[in-house]
Parts: sequence; C-alpha cells; structure tokens
Amino acid sequence: MQVEALPSAVRSVVQSHRCGGRRVGVVPTMGALHVGHVSLMEAARRECDFVVTTIFVNPMQFGPNEDFECYPRTLEQDLQRCEAAGVDLVFTPDAAQMFPPDAESIVSLTGLTRKLEGRDRPGHFDGVTTVVAKLFNITLPHRAYFGQKDYQQQLVIRRMVSDLNWALEIVTCPIVREDDGLAMSSRNRYLSPADRERSLVLFRALSMAQQLAETGSESPDSISRQMQQLIGGVNGVDLVYSVVADCDTLEPLVETSERAVALIAARVGKTRLIDNQILRFR
Amino acid sequence: MQVEALPSAVRSVVQSHRCGGRRVGVVPTMGALHVGHVSLMEAARRECDFVVTTIFVNPMQFGPNEDFECYPRTLEQDLQRCEAAGVDLVFTPDAAQMFPPDAESIVSLTGLTRKLEGRDRPGHFDGVTTVVAKLFNITLPHRAYFGQKDYQQQLVIRRMVSDLNWALEIVTCPIVREDDGLAMSSRNRYLSPADRERSLVLFRALSMAQQLAETGSESPDSISRQMQQLIGGVNGVDLVYSVVADCDTLEPLVETSERAVALIAARVGKTRLIDNQILRFR
Repeated sequence: MQVEALPSAVRSVVQSHRCGGRRVGVVPTMGALHVGHVSLMEAARRECDFVVTTIFVNPMQFGPNEDFECYPRTLEQDLQRCEAAGVDLVFTPDAAQMFPPDAESIVSLTGLTRKLEGRDRPGHFDGVTTVVAKLFNITLPHRAYFGQKDYQQQLVIRRMVSDLNWALEIVTCPIVREDDGLAMSSRNRYLSPADRERSLVLFRALSMAQQLAETGSESPDSISRQMQQLIGGVNGVDLVYSVVADCDTLEPLVETSERAVALIAARVGKTRLIDNQILRFR
Repeated sequence: MQVEALPSAVRSVVQSHRCGGRRVGVVPTMGALHVGHVSLMEAARRECDFVVTTIFVNPMQFGPNEDFECYPRTLEQDLQRCEAAGVDLVFTPDAAQMFPPDAESIVSLTGLTRKLEGRDRPGHFDGVTTVVAKLFNITLPHRAYFGQKDYQQQLVIRRMVSDLNWALEIVTCPIVREDDGLAMSSRNRYLSPADRERSLVLFRALSMAQQLAETGSESPDSISRQMQQLIGGVNGVDLVYSVVADCDTLEPLVETSERAVALIAARVGKTRLIDNQILRFR
C-alpha cells in the first residue's frame, strides 16, 4: 500500500491506472476510521481495480465553534485499517497545501445546502463541496464512495457532480451500526458512558418512524412530531431537528410518499450526532 | 472536423486521445468567432495533438440588463473558421443541457472577482467560472487557451484551476487588434461607424500609458488620471474604469512596478468595451 501526500504523485499513479483500463474507486474520509469507513473501502475493493482512500481533516467544513481542533486524528491506526481493507493508495495531504493562504475558490450549492445540516452549520457544505471537488480533481475516480450516515452530504455531492459534469459515479453505502443501534461515527468516541446510553434514542426514534410508516395510518408530520416527543423526553439530549422529508429534495413531506427519509440531528452532551432512515410507507 | 452537442460524446473522444498519449488543447468561446479566437485555435493547433473548440453563449455570465438575447450567434461561419484553423472537434452544447432547471452548483472566487469587471458586472464571473469548470470536466484539456483581451477573466480562471486542482495549464494569448488598434471583440459589430471611431480612444489611452510608463517619471496614479482625462474628453464614451494595477492581484498600484497592467472599461454608445496593456515601467 502506497501512502502519498503530494497531489501530483497521486494523480500520476491514478492516471496510469485509468489509461491501463482499470477502474478507480475513491473513499474520501477525515480519518478516525471506523467500521463504517471500512465498509466503504470494502465496497470500493469489490467494485474497482484500484482503490484510493483520502485522509484529510478538512478545516473548511468546520464552523468556528466546532470541533476541528479536537477532531480525532489516528493516522497510524487508520493506515492499518486501509491496508487490511485492501486499499492500494492512501492520500494524506497537508492543510497548507490543500488551502494555501491565497486560495479563494469555493464550490457551493444554493438550495440543498440551505436545509437541515446547512441551516444549523452555515458554511459547512461549502467546505465539503470545495474539498471534495479538489479531491476529485486529484484522485480522478470512476466511483466515489460515501456513507448514507451523512445523508444530506451524499445528496449534495451527487448534485455537485451532476451540475458540474464530473464523469464519475457516487456510490452511497448503508449505515453501519453498533450492536445496540448507534450509527458508527468518528464522533462517538467523544460520548461519556451516560451520553453513549442517551444517544440510543436517535435509533429508537428512527425505528419507531419506520414502524409508524409501515402501519400506513400516520402522516409524515405526525411521525416527525412523535420522533420529537420521544427524543425530547430524554434528559441531556437536545434535538436540533427531526423530520420526514423527500429523499431527493429534503423538503418536509406533507403526504406519505415512496421516496421518504427520516432525518435527525441532536446534541448529546457536547457531541453533535446525526442519523437517518429511509422510510417505506405502506 | 467533428461537431458534437453531447457532453458524453465529447468526453469519450477526448478520453481515448488522452490515453493514446495525445495532448488535448481546448479553446472555450461564446462563438461569433473573430481573428482573436482564430489566434487561440492556431496556438492550440501548434502546441497540442487534439484541438477542441467549445461554442456556447453562456446565459449565466450575462447580467439581467446585458446583451444575452442579442449576442451575435454565427454558428455556420464559426464552424468554417474552426475548420480552417485545423480544429478537430467543436463542442456545441445546448443551454437546457448545460443548465437544467434543477442545477444549483456554483464555482465562485471571493477576492479577484470583486474587482474591476466584477464590481461593474455582479455575478458575471460566477457565470464564467461555473461554465468553465463544467467545460473543463467535459473536455478534459491538458491546455486551455484564453485571450489576454479579457485580462481579469484569464487571471480568475488561473486562480480557479490552481485552487481546485484541475491538472491543466492555462495559456494566455496576446490581444489581436484591428489595423487601427481596436482590440478584436465579438461586440465590436454593435458599434455604429461613429462609435467605432470613438472607441479608438481606448487604444490611444493604453498606448499613452505605455509611453508614460517608459519615461519612468510618472506614477501609476498619474497615468490612471491621464488615461481618464483622455477618455473623458471624447463625447459619447463613458468611462467605467481606467487603472494601473498589479498584474496578479489587480490592486491599483501606488508605486511603479515590474508587474503592472493598465486596464480600461468604457461604454461607447450602448456597447461595453474592455482593453488592457501590460506596462513596462522604466
């Protein structure tokens, strides 16, 4: 497994594989790799001939009061996980090279990014789309892999790729959960034992939403409210939003739909968690 | 010479040439091709193995009160000029495919685009950078050719390419002028005979600026003011700006510099013209 920090080195390796007719799969990450990330790398390994993982804690997608400074950095373990997953090349750029002081170009979306996460974290998605645009131009994937856990993020990136004509396919892989249902996240390690327990209410709310949808007798709005009540009943969990939305536009649904997703964001102690569940209305 | 309207068709042709080791040169244009454009295509022809010209009147770079509707469209003549210049492929996308109603991604710069042209034409450069990003992702150039006539535009595109890591080189070709000095522009055909005569003051002002710079005794500010006076003295010519600026940052120069450019924008009748001249201070 090759580890490269220089964009030009990564690009020339990938170019030679592309021209040799090999399919290139890329898994963009911020490191602190967990089983969820591993599932992305394994999917890329199954479907592509040359697999690149990028590890970069992107300062541009953190707000001024967010956890950029203390975001977990576990490079040595990350590289072991990449190697074990059969990754061919790990790209580990440094921040000064990714965002030199005179850089001033931004890729932004004007609609999707204003909703849900975007409303609560202004500027977050501009950071995501800008760094992902850069990573795509450096790693030249045929396929890029993202987790459904960051549901809005994968939608935003799909939109960006389509709008700006990158010739690549976005693959969204299912959420990987702990045995008790908590969605895997690099931020879970921030949780105290008591907060870890409290955080399970997110999965409980989404499971309830799915059960209610299956009954066929509850409206999306009623389901949203019941999720809200359930989460509101747990001390130490501050709901940011819970919504049943169209799975493409993220607009709150008024009527039941075949294209629905329940999305939740909440603060548990100081830790901000998100989770979601595609709903199958009866 | 091949003419293609579909991005996917263009991309697959270009990809095969790239992988065959051939260098791809791209000349993005809005059509209404003149001798200035031809010089770009000829440069691409000399320096590259496969030459693509794109012809697309980009609605996103026109302001609401600008000349999008009446911008000259001369496709048949344009194709003849491309063929004569040895172009291999002309990409002629249609607007509905380039900007479908649900598109919402924008590439923008936060500094360079706020100055000069950007101040007078808000949103203009967002339209330019967004469409050029799309064209780069479709046509996959090794080199892309722009005219120095749109001085700020080529700076903005260089910045974008560097910031967002496209693996391509921007080539800026010299301004091509009519015999009497007027810079070639698709908009020159709007000029009435009287306005055509008046418009020569732009070149006169830039030539004067160059002479003053060569004397070594005039400050950039004094040169700007003298350009302003000269242009202000011509009835029917409304100066938008005339400035001596740093040729990379476009900040007005206080002291003489080896990296100076004089830039002018003016309205002559209803026609907005721009022109510029690199200055060599003694």
